[in-house]
Amino acid sequence: MRTAHDTHEPSRVVSRDARSGRPRDWETSASTPGEVDAAVRAAADAAPPLRDREVRIALLRAAAREIAADGERIIAAADAETGLGVPRLEGELARVVAQFRLFADEVADGGHLGVTIDHADTGVVPARPDLRRYQVPLGVVAVFAASNFPLAFSVPGGDTASAWAAGCPVVVKAHPGHPHTSELCAAALRRAAGRAGLEPGVLGVVHGFDAGLLLVRHERVAGVGFTGSVAGGRALFDEVAARAVPIPFHGELGSVNPVVVTEEAAAIRAAEIAEGLAGSVALGLGQFCVKPGVVLVPRGEDGDELVRLLAGRLAEVPGGALLTERIRESFVTGVGERTATPGVTRLVEPSVDGTAVSAGLLTVDADGFTPLLGEECFGPLAVVVRYGSRAEAEGVLAGLAGSLTGTVQLGPGELAAGSPWVEVLARSSGRVVVNAWPTGVAVTWAQHHGGPYPAATSPATSVGAAAVTRWLRPVVFQNAPASVLPPELREDNPLGLPRRVDGAWRY
Amino acid sequence: MRTAHDTHEPSRVVSRDARSGRPRDWETSASTPGEVDAAVRAAADAAPPLRDREVRIALLRAAAREIAADGERIIAAADAETGLGVPRLEGELARVVAQFRLFADEVADGGHLGVTIDHADTGVVPARPDLRRYQVPLGVVAVFAASNFPLAFSVPGGDTASAWAAGCPVVVKAHPGHPHTSELCAAALRRAAGRAGLEPGVLGVVHGFDAGLLLVRHERVAGVGFTGSVAGGRALFDEVAARAVPIPFHGELGSVNPVVVTEEAAAIRAAEIAEGLAGSVALGLGQFCVKPGVVLVPRGEDGDELVRLLAGRLAEVPGGALLTERIRESFVTGVGERTATPGVTRLVEPSVDGTAVSAGLLTVDADGFTPLLGEECFGPLAVVVRYGSRAEAEGVLAGLAGSLTGTVQLGPGELAAGSPWVEVLARSSGRVVVNAWPTGVAVTWAQHHGGPYPAATSPATSVGAAAVTRWLRPVVFQNAPASVLPPELREDNPLGLPRRVDGAWRY
Repeated sequence: MRTAHDTHEPSRVVSRDARSGRPRDWETSASTPGEVDAAVRAAADAAPPLRDREVRIALLRAAAREIAADGERIIAAADAETGLGVPRLEGELARVVAQFRLFADEVADGGHLGVTIDHADTGVVPARPDLRRYQVPLGVVAVFAASNFPLAFSVPGGDTASAWAAGCPVVVKAHPGHPHTSELCAAALRRAAGRAGLEPGVLGVVHGFDAGLLLVRHERVAGVGFTGSVAGGRALFDEVAARAVPIPFHGELGSVNPVVVTEEAAAIRAAEIAEGLAGSVALGLGQFCVKPGVVLVPRGEDGDELVRLLAGRLAEVPGGALLTERIRESFVTGVGERTATPGVTRLVEPSVDGTAVSAGLLTVDADGFTPLLGEECFGPLAVVVRYGSRAEAEGVLAGLAGSLTGTVQLGPGELAAGSPWVEVLARSSGRVVVNAWPTGVAVTWAQHHGGPYPAATSPATSVGAAAVTRWLRPVVFQNAPASVLPPELREDNPLGLPRRVDGAWRY
Repeated sequence: MRTAHDTHEPSRVVSRDARSGRPRDWETSASTPGEVDAAVRAAADAAPPLRDREVRIALLRAAAREIAADGERIIAAADAETGLGVPRLEGELARVVAQFRLFADEVADGGHLGVTIDHADTGVVPARPDLRRYQVPLGVVAVFAASNFPLAFSVPGGDTASAWAAGCPVVVKAHPGHPHTSELCAAALRRAAGRAGLEPGVLGVVHGFDAGLLLVRHERVAGVGFTGSVAGGRALFDEVAARAVPIPFHGELGSVNPVVVTEEAAAIRAAEIAEGLAGSVALGLGQFCVKPGVVLVPRGEDGDELVRLLAGRLAEVPGGALLTERIRESFVTGVGERTATPGVTRLVEPSVDGTAVSAGLLTVDADGFTPLLGEECFGPLAVVVRYGSRAEAEGVLAGLAGSLTGTVQLGPGELAAGSPWVEVLARSSGRVVVNAWPTGVAVTWAQHHGGPYPAATSPATSVGAAAVTRWLRPVVFQNAPASVLPPELREDNPLGLPRRVDGAWRY
């Protein structure tokens, strides 16, 4: 590993305009080892007051307010750095604000603390002591920001919000695609921390590849949240697994998000499906983790018509700049490799014009499907696979790695009678979508954004209320009187928490 | 790795009498790679009916009955193979039977499925689709049995019971210390499977070191439960982390279980503490994961008296055979290394007489405490560390790795006024015991048997009702009508499950 202190000249982290590729008038330094260490220690030192749930609620509500208050400036920087466009970023900022509020509500609810109380019982064999369990924060959480959501999966995103909700301070490894946006958001979050009476170290930001490695190796870091590529995520996963003291690594690495269109659906709803699918593939120029990448369409005339309509729709989608030059290069290479696969036909050729690309569509028969075609290609590309039987389609799915989502388009008869596809897709994905599209991930109580590897490296979700449980560990107190118990576990339940008492749920 | 098929002569796994060290009239072969593969595939094939909760309940209840029905034979084999004694093993068998029943009740309760339903809401921004989440089984679970609980942490133990409760078939890597007991238990569990209408492959057993490696590398294995040493557990953890598709590894590796005696407690309850502590250290010849290994006693006369009484008690404890020859050798070596540490005084010297050993007690001043003295020494040994101030005692604790338990003995004034020790011990352990002893782990709803590494490799518990959650992963269904939903997620709640609906708990 090359570290910045080898040269005494920390490398520069430059903010670039995504559309022009040119440097903007903002830069910072890659964090030195000393700065990474200081950020982690400041975070650890800022932790104790977070044990008070009123402080956590105040922090999360203040974060919502401070991000919203500085929204115009943040969106301007994010639009320049990512090219995602102001309307999309306004939506993303609204999502971030709502997310902080959801987690504030979750802290108030407290069900995720899993308060469980067994009263002593000397009448059972063996005798049972008084036991009281709840969940406590893990410690400092390291967050690796993603390129494609400069707000919602970055500094003020779900990992930060859920870690704070759990009572864990955060150090974010900023994504190099939007360093200025990251620092603006961090400043807003530190203002929120101040309003909640907390030290600014409760939210640290570090820059640079080496800083990320030092972060996951730091002995005071107790958990990692990651959203990014399979290659980068796996490298960090391996780093974390090699630690003397391993820690939880909750990574979202990659997902091809298969879609199955049944014969009945293709026969009845070809136009509707083509339109919805084109929208889902091209949304945000295909730069969503849940973009449908492989689409199983039945052979025959109905399928032909659906594919023709889909190609027509995708060909009309305006091109634009991808997030970074590296992503554009990967996309162009990925399209080229797939197009060169024997048996693959190019239905819509993506154009590349300077920094701008447009959507592409490839097709292959199930017979010619290869592992490469089943890998995620980040950007506006989908591969249509034509199948002749359910067994053949299942065979293609069985060759795919785990995904965040699996979608099935059913006909009305199948909807009424039931369909095996829902269970088949649940085997290899974390969210099964029926007659709808996977893009647009609601931030709610039931949401699950995860799935079998490489969709996620753990069974946890990174989106929705349940994400808070990633940053907690249980502790049980045996034979402890009220005087030494935390308020969460006292018999009189002063915080009004949902709990399980002697096996019975009490809500 | 040496595999059995290199020689075409599978190595023998011999049942030995723990007290005499001699072979018993029972042996089997180390499992071949083909046998390991067949066990995993048979387990995977046996899985589908376990999705029905009535089948899981029937299986767990039948397991309780079949183990109890064959109890006499199982206990006789276990006593011969482990030397733990019939009374202890009768208690362990009762625990195993109760454990299966607890998990049957947990399946019926269903709260661990985490059913969460969000109804569609087009009035929020962004609009929310209908989302329904619950937990589904991971797949085949590999269980590594421990030496010290030939029933409760072995073939019919908590890992098997909790995996079955989750709907996961199990393949156990039998402990070489009790292969005959393992096979008798497996036969009883397969009879239970038959009574529940399941294939016998729902419980596989493999023997031999190589078989264990093949098991955790097998692509159809979806999770691992391990109880054993730090060295063995870490080696398997590293194997699992290196898989192309990593899987959850829930390991319990080692724990020194510190005890803090405050000055007030030593002044008032020296005799009671000495007696309780001696019992906890020597119970089962110190072969419990939660044996107190490091005891912090204040300097001064009260502490002196406590230590004197403790030494007297421990010196009276009858010796006996440890579980295996290797454990005896490790114990003798461990005692020798610690005794040779500068500053360490031997208060009770463990006797070694053939296969039998007796309890030992060492003492050292906090100034002379070393990392070695803070490591687990499996067997009847404790190290008393004398401290002069709370800060000094905290310094010793801070130098210890994570533990399953942390115990504090408080005086009545501290009990009434509160004590910082409870929170200090919660930082580095999974169970904080107040004025009681850590040995004797109740199998209940609130129990947590885990803790910071190396006590456990994940934040999960291996004992108690919550252990079932280790073998589950969430799936959410979006926009799915009742016809394609599992019964657990239907609006009319046909199984009567506890659930969260639109953020509100409904029990």
